[in-house]
Amino acid sequence: MNRNNHSKHIALKQVKINDSFWNNICETVRNNVIPYQYLALQDKIEDAEKSYCIDNFIKAANVVSNLNNGIEVETYPVDKWYYDEKNADEKAFHGWVFQDSDVYKWIEAVGYSLQNHPDKALEAKAREYIDIICSAQLENGYLDTLYIINNRHKTFSNLKDFHELYCFGHLVEGAVSFYEATGDKKLFDAAVRFADLICDTFGKDKINGYPGHEIAELALVKLYEKTKQIKYLETASFFIEERGKTPFYFDKEQGTKTDGSSYKYNQAHMPVKMQKEALGHAVRGVYLYSAMADIAKYNNDAQLLAACKNIWNNIVNKKMYITGGIGATAEGEAFSFDYDLPNDLAYCETCASIGLIFFAQRMSELEINSQYSDIIERALYNTVLASMAEDGKSFFYVNPLEVLPIASREDSRKKHIKTVRQKWFNCACCPPNLARLVSSIGKYIYSENDNIIFVNQYIGSEIKNDKAEIKMVSDYIESGEIELHIKPKKAFTLALRIPAWCSEYEISYTDKIRNGYAFINITNDICITAAFNPKIKMIRCSNMVKYNIGKIAVTRGPIVFCIEEADNGKNLHLLKLCDKPNFIYHNGIILANGYREKADDYLYQDYKADEYEECTIKFIPYYKWANRKENEMSVYVRIK
Amino acid sequence: MNRNNHSKHIALKQVKINDSFWNNICETVRNNVIPYQYLALQDKIEDAEKSYCIDNFIKAANVVSNLNNGIEVETYPVDKWYYDEKNADEKAFHGWVFQDSDVYKWIEAVGYSLQNHPDKALEAKAREYIDIICSAQLENGYLDTLYIINNRHKTFSNLKDFHELYCFGHLVEGAVSFYEATGDKKLFDAAVRFADLICDTFGKDKINGYPGHEIAELALVKLYEKTKQIKYLETASFFIEERGKTPFYFDKEQGTKTDGSSYKYNQAHMPVKMQKEALGHAVRGVYLYSAMADIAKYNNDAQLLAACKNIWNNIVNKKMYITGGIGATAEGEAFSFDYDLPNDLAYCETCASIGLIFFAQRMSELEINSQYSDIIERALYNTVLASMAEDGKSFFYVNPLEVLPIASREDSRKKHIKTVRQKWFNCACCPPNLARLVSSIGKYIYSENDNIIFVNQYIGSEIKNDKAEIKMVSDYIESGEIELHIKPKKAFTLALRIPAWCSEYEISYTDKIRNGYAFINITNDICITAAFNPKIKMIRCSNMVKYNIGKIAVTRGPIVFCIEEADNGKNLHLLKLCDKPNFIYHNGIILANGYREKADDYLYQDYKADEYEECTIKFIPYYKWANRKENEMSVYVRIK
Repeated sequence: MNRNNHSKHIALKQVKINDSFWNNICETVRNNVIPYQYLALQDKIEDAEKSYCIDNFIKAANVVSNLNNGIEVETYPVDKWYYDEKNADEKAFHGWVFQDSDVYKWIEAVGYSLQNHPDKALEAKAREYIDIICSAQLENGYLDTLYIINNRHKTFSNLKDFHELYCFGHLVEGAVSFYEATGDKKLFDAAVRFADLICDTFGKDKINGYPGHEIAELALVKLYEKTKQIKYLETASFFIEERGKTPFYFDKEQGTKTDGSSYKYNQAHMPVKMQKEALGHAVRGVYLYSAMADIAKYNNDAQLLAACKNIWNNIVNKKMYITGGIGATAEGEAFSFDYDLPNDLAYCETCASIGLIFFAQRMSELEINSQYSDIIERALYNTVLASMAEDGKSFFYVNPLEVLPIASREDSRKKHIKTVRQKWFNCACCPPNLARLVSSIGKYIYSENDNIIFVNQYIGSEIKNDKAEIKMVSDYIESGEIELHIKPKKAFTLALRIPAWCSEYEISYTDKIRNGYAFINITNDICITAAFNPKIKMIRCSNMVKYNIGKIAVTRGPIVFCIEEADNGKNLHLLKLCDKPNFIYHNGIILANGYREKADDYLYQDYKADEYEECTIKFIPYYKWANRKENEMSVYVRIK
Repeated sequence: MNRNNHSKHIALKQVKINDSFWNNICETVRNNVIPYQYLALQDKIEDAEKSYCIDNFIKAANVVSNLNNGIEVETYPVDKWYYDEKNADEKAFHGWVFQDSDVYKWIEAVGYSLQNHPDKALEAKAREYIDIICSAQLENGYLDTLYIINNRHKTFSNLKDFHELYCFGHLVEGAVSFYEATGDKKLFDAAVRFADLICDTFGKDKINGYPGHEIAELALVKLYEKTKQIKYLETASFFIEERGKTPFYFDKEQGTKTDGSSYKYNQAHMPVKMQKEALGHAVRGVYLYSAMADIAKYNNDAQLLAACKNIWNNIVNKKMYITGGIGATAEGEAFSFDYDLPNDLAYCETCASIGLIFFAQRMSELEINSQYSDIIERALYNTVLASMAEDGKSFFYVNPLEVLPIASREDSRKKHIKTVRQKWFNCACCPPNLARLVSSIGKYIYSENDNIIFVNQYIGSEIKNDKAEIKMVSDYIESGEIELHIKPKKAFTLALRIPAWCSEYEISYTDKIRNGYAFINITNDICITAAFNPKIKMIRCSNMVKYNIGKIAVTRGPIVFCIEEADNGKNLHLLKLCDKPNFIYHNGIILANGYREKADDYLYQDYKADEYEECTIKFIPYYKWANRKENEMSVYVRIK
């Protein structure tokens, strides 16, 4: 591993965003999504599915108070993934076993938001939740409302299914974010206490288990980065090293003896260093792979890095939608087999694409290669942005590439394909995940090492650090034009990502091109301009993906486009693009020449050529779909 | 309704089959399938799923004996669709709630077989089962082992789910068949006693229920035809008339109040005369529609006939695969919405295509129109024949049109798609259904009314009746050539079906062509020859079926062909037929010119033309697929 190739993203606090495309989205998250989710966590959104999240913390705080006062505490079973009015005692825990994580993710988003947009009222709301959370923590540092409410004697007895280490991970991430924003250590200290308990509990000669749903690993690395306490890195490494070893810890825990194949779901079917294929639950997968990249870096572990690369290549070459969606199958919210990327059955969970961004960023910090930021861009501008309505008040959990409303109604194989965004979800992992990602978007723009500042995403912004002051003015999405006004404090190298989609570009000055970056030695104040021509393209998906044969997708710059019934009428599958479609782009919309096939009168007839009439096909960005009404949508279009 | 257009199939006993194509299949069923199933019903096939069928009858006979001897009888719950070692008491009923029907269908097949192939040993085996069955009948005529074993006080309390009227229907069909073959009335009398109990139980001012799984209706019509007792027809009519009326009987039975939409599964969501679309469980559907056609005929009910026609048109124009498969979705083994005919997720239960044949035959007897026998042919030569291995020892329940073994292994959405035929099924409705259909194939060849003998299927055979002696020599599948040697006993009209697939044919003498039949007035001994050119065709599926756009299916005569990996290598989806493929037919195989696309190296790349090499594509009949080893298969092939 070549440490010279390592880099680190420039901290969020140092990045001030001012971008024609992103300002609006960031404001929507700040002004609408975060306040909306504050209410959702307390079940104050009308007609939305229930969260129970804050309610559980209040119940748990009550348990803790009773314990402190020597009042006897009832117990309830911990035997299901989901609890509600129908299957649980009123006084017991409600919601999914990972319900706590929603408030942690919200606090994380708030923390990111506060770093560049101080807001006393919002800070107070977060503190209100932090107070409730901290009052629910047990004396020994343990903090998971499911077990505290239902049965604190059973903690860590079912790591495979019951998510307390997952909630811990999100607690740490939320706590670090809020601490970095405000300097307030209350939640951070609570997280450290729980982390210390976990480090005391798991490891060599202790419990040799690991999380069923990964994230604690990368959270512990964050805590290590923040505190420099080696035990957090060691426990994270232990979780990674131990995972998938035989005899399987999950077997031991469950009192069974299996061949481990069912643990593919948890990426725990074999030691992680032997894994070459992205398998199982997609979000778990990318959280694990992110942590593997972290540990590879800190432990200088070339084998672990090789495993990360194998898995990365498997994802981006065989298991990723053009939208950056991953996890093709609803069963287990999981990766399917190579090239199985159906458009109309796709799962493409929002969280999975966010996790892919986490993985990509860590890989990008391990080696100089623009592909990682290319994939971040793909996932971000397409799946992630599509998951939120324009008003920030409804969300997609699942992000299909083809929608036929009747199929979602009538075909139970497609019941996971929602045709309109939902106000909330009883399993609400995605909206707060989106909020934390968009609030921290500044982290993905720049990275640096000793000599180089990398520009990875072209989002208008300013940074100031010991190397330089840089102001980036970006019209990346519309014209592809960028200006970088640079005032160096010392000589350094600027590295501009050349987007993979871009075959025609001009950069006002370049010293060399390597690994997808244009390197420019900066010694004096300078304005570098770049123009990445966002030409409209027809993209061919590999013919190994049988669903897309004979079809193309239309892209412009990083944006994947789609067709909707609202613009093109019903039966989108009858449309066909001309092979020279004379694309016209105007105001975010693409018009193209095409044909509409006449619907056949007979179910079966002798082969004949298609009958069609000429028509104009209208494309809109995929991330804007389903903002009008329920209707058909398709990313891929047939081509003549 | 014009009674002049009615006809009736010529009875099985009068039809002696001698056909180059069918002899082999009928012998396989007679010599292999029927003996094999005799053993399967007693769980004597190694490594096959359990039947429990005869075992249940023995248990029930034991209950009856105890009751007769005043010995106390234990009860067990009737609360599930399936019972086995894991969830039921050893002494209780085992298997599916409809397990009894398997032996009835086997007896029905035996009866048909014996009609033209007397076999004392086989007859003795059937009598052995009949004795066991009859000894399990309650004093009052009731005969369903689930309730007799588990709780005889709960009979007829859950018509919606628990199939006792379904088992009754199959009992009647088996009993009639065996009685017609042997003159032995033992089982027939048992069926009549149960039928009498049912007529006493259900009707106006009695229980106003109807079967959750239809078939009793058409069985009661058979009993009426056999006995001329009007009460059987009346009870059948009552079941049909009452079905789907509000308030819903199933609501009453379940103690709920619903909008009836969940009863679409049972075709009981609205009165049958108002139904226009084939909905719900496909086998239940076609059994109901068959009975509706029967009742329309006997009650001279034009409204009911109109409903049959609407539903028929919906099936054959919007919900039927090219193989005659119906029921596109595994969820509920049901019809999907119009034009939703996915190849790789298809359900196409064997029983459903058999039921479609029943429905078609009844429609064919109601009006002179060759389309009904065309559909019988389509279902018979493709889905039905494909369901049995060449050796008659393994079977398909589900008949997909596209198979990718890795998808069946890895993708739980496709777990119902078996890549090789199974020895037996715990839900074993299909193999005995196949046995009874093939054993009665003679019923589908000829029909007649006062003046006309119709030749509906070109299967070599002889008949003798009061109109004529006819000997048909058929090479229909290979050359399409037919000879009909006719010795009339009086003047009559012969009507030869002109197959819908046939655009080029010669018939040596024709008086007129009407409704898809060539009519020939016969007065003297004559030999009529016909040649239906079984030209290889490329068939276009409607572009409303989005899965088949850009593809064609290859047929020759009534036979649908497919491509298999064993002949064409992996990745069948990369094959493409030339638009002028120069088909060569030899010995059941079709060779064609085509291309194999080079697999793409990149998951996403700028649009480019396909790269390909020329190749020969080899087709085999669909009904022969999966007789070599597990491999890819596809009916539809792309066309350049």
